[in-house]
Amino acid sequence: MHRVKVRVVEDALDANATLAKANRADFDRHGVTVVNLMGAPGAGKTALLEQVIAEGIDGVRIGILEGDVEGSLDADRLARLHVPVTQINTAAGFGGECHLDANMVRSALAAVPLDELDLLVIENVGNLVCPAEFRVGEDARVMVTAITEGEDKPLKYPLMFRACDLVVVNKVDLAPHLDVDLDLLLDRIDKVHPDVETVVVSGRTGQGVDAVRHWLRELHAAKAVVEA
Amino acid sequence: MHRVKVRVVEDALDANATLAKANRADFDRHGVTVVNLMGAPGAGKTALLEQVIAEGIDGVRIGILEGDVEGSLDADRLARLHVPVTQINTAAGFGGECHLDANMVRSALAAVPLDELDLLVIENVGNLVCPAEFRVGEDARVMVTAITEGEDKPLKYPLMFRACDLVVVNKVDLAPHLDVDLDLLLDRIDKVHPDVETVVVSGRTGQGVDAVRHWLRELHAAKAVVEA
Repeated sequence: MHRVKVRVVEDALDANATLAKANRADFDRHGVTVVNLMGAPGAGKTALLEQVIAEGIDGVRIGILEGDVEGSLDADRLARLHVPVTQINTAAGFGGECHLDANMVRSALAAVPLDELDLLVIENVGNLVCPAEFRVGEDARVMVTAITEGEDKPLKYPLMFRACDLVVVNKVDLAPHLDVDLDLLLDRIDKVHPDVETVVVSGRTGQGVDAVRHWLRELHAAKAVVEA
Repeated sequence: MHRVKVRVVEDALDANATLAKANRADFDRHGVTVVNLMGAPGAGKTALLEQVIAEGIDGVRIGILEGDVEGSLDADRLARLHVPVTQINTAAGFGGECHLDANMVRSALAAVPLDELDLLVIENVGNLVCPAEFRVGEDARVMVTAITEGEDKPLKYPLMFRACDLVVVNKVDLAPHLDVDLDLLLDRIDKVHPDVETVVVSGRTGQGVDAVRHWLRELHAAKAVVEA
């Protein structure tokens, strides 16, 4: 059973790489910088995006591609902030997958107004395992980990922490009420992914969100320079 | 790509059902009640087990089968409480799967002292999607959802909430510091899985854990009556 499955997964990953490249070419042609945003269910990915979008990023038009197993709760939350939001449901046509892949993103692209965007954030399905295995054509990968999840997560899900270019440690407003050691968490992130950039934020109070905005603006500026 | 994948997943699920039955027969022969414990990363599954085991359940000998992608952090925590703990890593030999399946559990059974147990808790990989799709031979499925994850999780991951016989709402000690409505969360759990049993607990303070102990004792007593 497992041998057959592994072979098919390898085939699928190859097809994924081909489709991810095609997505990337489309993004590049439109000058759109793309971020794949990942994290566990309830880490606060949507709340962070709400904070980023509410004040906006100077000179950067933001759009969202929202991945969920089903429903459009998060897309509805973000659409209230008057940015273009497109929903992908993995339950409808994709077997209820626990992650986005390049084919799912490709199938949604016709509905994304790339001409009107500078930055597209793809919010992945809440999961610390499989999303890290599937590139979707993104320029960078960002993960959100909530301090409430405990300081052991980098050691238990190292592939996810290693896959990301920025780790956002969220819900720091709750630190006084937890038995979680923020310094130990940051040390462990650095242990599994040496020198990865980290930002400590509260999606609830907005603390630290400016640093995320700055990081996204620099990412887009760096891509614009390369393409110019 | 997807058609091939779906067919193989169906084959895999059939094989899984056969192996789950074989596991169940082994558990039944030893009179061991088995719980498949699921939840998102950081929901507090291990902390809840620590609380349950610390005081124990009268007349019920507890053992743990601990599923993680890699490492043995949780198994080490639980072994300190002097119960038999067996570790399954999905990264070693199982391709880094984001869930346990019946074959993985079967491969670990030789290392589980079933003769010395009344209750085996199988702690699944932290994930709200795929673990709900794979039975492993359990008598009951229990999920832990932390109030910190937000009140939208039943609507976003309904299959998981529907799959479970008991939903434990954890980290209620943090409720005063959150913008999360506990009543709304409980209403939504009831909406996606009408009349499912729920228990509100704090794995940190121990509040409500007695109700979980009681539920597990009743589950084991009911199975013992059926088999007598």
